[in-house]
Amino acid sequence: MSGQQRGTTKQRMLDSALLLLRERGAPGVTVDAVLAHSGAPRGSVYHHFPGGRNEIVLQALRLAGDYIAGMVETSVAEGDVLRTVERFVRFWKRALTSTDYRAGCPLVAVAIDSREHIPEAPDLVREIFTRWQASLADVLSTNGFPAERARRLASVVVSAIEGAIILSRAHRDLGPLDDVLTELTPLLEHR
Amino acid sequence: MSGQQRGTTKQRMLDSALLLLRERGAPGVTVDAVLAHSGAPRGSVYHHFPGGRNEIVLQALRLAGDYIAGMVETSVAEGDVLRTVERFVRFWKRALTSTDYRAGCPLVAVAIDSREHIPEAPDLVREIFTRWQASLADVLSTNGFPAERARRLASVVVSAIEGAIILSRAHRDLGPLDDVLTELTPLLEHR
Repeated sequence: MSGQQRGTTKQRMLDSALLLLRERGAPGVTVDAVLAHSGAPRGSVYHHFPGGRNEIVLQALRLAGDYIAGMVETSVAEGDVLRTVERFVRFWKRALTSTDYRAGCPLVAVAIDSREHIPEAPDLVREIFTRWQASLADVLSTNGFPAERARRLASVVVSAIEGAIILSRAHRDLGPLDDVLTELTPLLEHR
Repeated sequence: MSGQQRGTTKQRMLDSALLLLRERGAPGVTVDAVLAHSGAPRGSVYHHFPGGRNEIVLQALRLAGDYIAGMVETSVAEGDVLRTVERFVRFWKRALTSTDYRAGCPLVAVAIDSREHIPEAPDLVREIFTRWQASLADVLSTNGFPAERARRLASVVVSAIEGAIILSRAHRDLGPLDDVLTELTPLLEHR
């Protein structure tokens, strides 16, 4: 098996784990479910993820967290806070419609699960939320907001969008995400 | 067994189911877990809940939804939108601190789970969210907001608070709920 093929199997397993996490929550990410969804052979679990099921969940979560943080940080580099938030909202709208509203935010899926399943999960969830909030606070500061207001608005943006993802999923309608963007826009335009 | 004792056992089982739902999500509410947590005898499951585990989850969810809707509707009767939202936030702060940040919103726990477990769950989740949003929109209208703005702000209030419950839980800190209240207050004071 070449390195590239190994990489492909591992990536396919992580993609499957991430989708299962977003659709069914952490308890839905079992070794059997990941193998069935990815078509990977059973031996690849302990080959690629010696820590087993928990390692799969944590790696999938980190990948997703890094991806979204990267997206926010790229927008931050452009320095336009409204465009950053619009991009964040647009990303989640696509994530919902492309899965017929079945798949939400993987971070939330793990955040609301009890702590006992995966001991490392709470720290990772906190680290990723903190990174998203810090990036948004950065772009708000760059746009002239005082530090404490920037921190607070960043917190509210993440809360409102995460909540709106859940409401949009429940209603099978993107309206709640549009509502958040419409109401947050004037807040983000004033200093 | 007297009617009262039956009522008490049933209520205890629903309380346990609700806490398990809030701490572990829908997959954590198994018949065994409810019996272990409530101390109810096994026979009481099919006596009180002939539909079994799914009926327990749905009844617990409806109770919680009605309780919160009742709280919002009582505040709505007072006609003060800010007080309504403050009460909603205060309720969730207590819910988080009284469980050492282990238990979140039961509605979210069911909303983000895949649909296949409990076929009736998505409709019930949608019904409860709709009821909360409609009550908040009512009080906003009473406070002079035009209908569409009232609907939109109600949607944002529910999204932001639900998201802030998740962030507060992840950070083990009530800050995100305070942030939402601080930033929403001026929106709710202007027409």
